[in-house]
Amino acid sequence: MEPEAAEQRAGVSARESVPSKRFHVLVGVTGSVAALKLPLLLSSLLEIAGVDVQVVTTESAKHFYNAQEIPVPLYSDSDEWQTCVVRAWDLRRPVLFCPAMNTAMWEHPITAQQVAKLKEFGYTEIPCIQKRLVCGDEGYGAMAEVWTIVEKVKEVLERS
Amino acid sequence: MEPEAAEQRAGVSARESVPSKRFHVLVGVTGSVAALKLPLLLSSLLEIAGVDVQVVTTESAKHFYNAQEIPVPLYSDSDEWQTCVVRAWDLRRPVLFCPAMNTAMWEHPITAQQVAKLKEFGYTEIPCIQKRLVCGDEGYGAMAEVWTIVEKVKEVLERS
Amino acid sequence: MEPEAAEQRAGVSARESVPSKRFHVLVGVTGSVAALKLPLLLSSLLEIAGVDVQVVTTESAKHFYNAQEIPVPLYSDSDEWQTCVVRAWDLRRPVLFCPAMNTAMWEHPITAQQVAKLKEFGYTEIPCIQKRLVCGDEGYGAMAEVWTIVEKVKEVLERS
Repeated sequence: MEPEAAEQRAGVSARESVPSKRFHVLVGVTGSVAALKLPLLLSSLLEIAGVDVQVVTTESAKHFYNAQEIPVPLYSDSDEWQTCVVRAWDLRRPVLFCPAMNTAMWEHPITAQQVAKLKEFGYTEIPCIQKRLVCGDEGYGAMAEVWTIVEKVKEVLERS
Repeated sequence: MEPEAAEQRAGVSARESVPSKRFHVLVGVTGSVAALKLPLLLSSLLEIAGVDVQVVTTESAKHFYNAQEIPVPLYSDSDEWQTCVVRAWDLRRPVLFCPAMNTAMWEHPITAQQVAKLKEFGYTEIPCIQKRLVCGDEGYGAMAEVWTIVEKVKEVLERS
Repeated sequence: MEPEAAEQRAGVSARESVPSKRFHVLVGVTGSVAALKLPLLLSSLLEIAGVDVQVVTTESAKHFYNAQEIPVPLYSDSDEWQTCVVRAWDLRRPVLFCPAMNTAMWEHPITAQQVAKLKEFGYTEIPCIQKRLVCGDEGYGAMAEVWTIVEKVKEVLERS
């Protein structure tokens, strides 16, 4: 989240007088059916002033959205790129994660252990919610609503 | 393990008067030489009354048996299907696991940690046995005998 | 590290009168830029008397050296061979590991946990050093110098 001199997205005059921070948001997307919300998430993030968005995706995630419809740079994961990005993350910069899975997966005891481990690393959980899942089951495991994620991103950016 | 109305395998009259439970057993098989016992295990399981069997296999496991000789539905693992099945398992239903490996692998300290983790999840271990392994070493690590596995499956089904 | 009757590398007379131990050193190399030091490490190891060297490599590691220039048997990892070798290692024989990574990776809390786990298994760490990394960052994470590794290997062989 590097502060930069006034510089904003296309369509805003470069002569804009109030300097503003510019933020780089990297969205990592993995193979959950929740990945179908990627286009909606991106368009919502792009509405935040001063935000640049890029996406790193696994191959599995690509089953759930159309790469042609992604309006920002998209990096693919054939070489486990996404894993490497997270592994090499500079922890002075925030990491938010949004679990999304089937209710049986959510209730498996390994999930709580994995979520606890991520939080122990200093990552921020955007908790999953309860609803009727795409697979027909009703219960916890659904990804947080897009607007919840976007609000949380804004909160984090404001503190940066 | 859903109880169902009297319904049995092919060859038994549908008018059979004693209702019986029907059980679904999913056999997961991974890349150990012990996978060569898959056909024997399947034929033994199929002798249990009211049992349906299906197999999910990794690609590596296929080196050890002939897929043509498997008399039940066989699901392959090119997309880590087996891992996903276990990850999304409804833990109200039993999971049995049968370790099978070389003695040096068995004695590596990570093995006891992994076995303990699986048991902590509520899975039931069918312990490996000591014998001369296919690689020539003598020691622990061999998969339990097929009849031991089948007896344990019956025990679990009877409690269901 | 099996002691054997006097037997040395090509070029040394078989009639050599002083018996000496013969050691087998297996070098595992993974996908870090530090892998570009493999040829130097091998030529240094081959100078130790009575040492046979073999290499097991991941596919990723091959981006960093020229397989044509490796003067010893080289086993590739398309089937996760390297992982299997470590997993089945007879722990009566020493394992040394040389971490090598970007500073941000090194500083991620998971690294200390993983290093601690390896040491708990009885493996010996040859600690990384601080320097300007290939990526331009300055900090810890660089692989130990080749001479440090070779000295440590000699020390271990002398105790065997």
